[in-house]
Amino acid sequence: MAERVRLVPNPWDAACPSREVLAMVGDKWALLLMPKLADGPKRNGELIRALAGVSQKMLTQTLRDMERNGLVVRRDFQEVPPRVEYELTELGRSLGKVVAALDQWVVDNYYEVEKARGAFDRAA
Amino acid sequence: MAERVRLVPNPWDAACPSREVLAMVGDKWALLLMPKLADGPKRNGELIRALAGVSQKMLTQTLRDMERNGLVVRRDFQEVPPRVEYELTELGRSLGKVVAALDQWVVDNYYEVEKARGAFDRAA
Repeated sequence: MAERVRLVPNPWDAACPSREVLAMVGDKWALLLMPKLADGPKRNGELIRALAGVSQKMLTQTLRDMERNGLVVRRDFQEVPPRVEYELTELGRSLGKVVAALDQWVVDNYYEVEKARGAFDRAA
Repeated sequence: MAERVRLVPNPWDAACPSREVLAMVGDKWALLLMPKLADGPKRNGELIRALAGVSQKMLTQTLRDMERNGLVVRRDFQEVPPRVEYELTELGRSLGKVVAALDQWVVDNYYEVEKARGAFDRAA
């Protein structure tokens, strides 16, 4: 059997498919969604309320994308009325920790960014 | 003088302008650019080579966006031929550390994501 060579993923290489994964994890809705799943399974309605302004279509698409990429499990309890829950996988939880740090950076540094913007726009 | 109340930024609130900052830091090109600036000032040509596939227009826009948001300083040495360098600010360096962790997650977990995708697509 031929040996399969595993290249080290390199998102700085335009041809490397890991670049697509980087774009997926940097998506605004994914960045907002992940911490909301960190403390346990959530239903669609809880998530749509937690992400003010997200459309149902965009939430569904983001969750499906995360499910496809192994970050989220969708659990359908086959009940009437329907009960469906979304939960982070182990892989999703490991990403969630990194994402939480990014979200926290935004919260911690927003006012400094705002100040820089004001100075830049006045100088322009 | 009226006291100015500083709200805690909350990107989960649709009306909070910090959400825009989150979208900016999650931008694919910004995520790829930041680690390339981590080890010192870089010229345009170095950056366009480091980010394979980026167009000049997109690189210029990303750098300008980062400059406006206080993450990057653009230094024009007023030389002929022109010499312009881009360097992370202190704020940019603090974000750079968080972004490096996200990039590293992608490098470390790309194959697991790929495996999940394959399983999802076969089941679909």
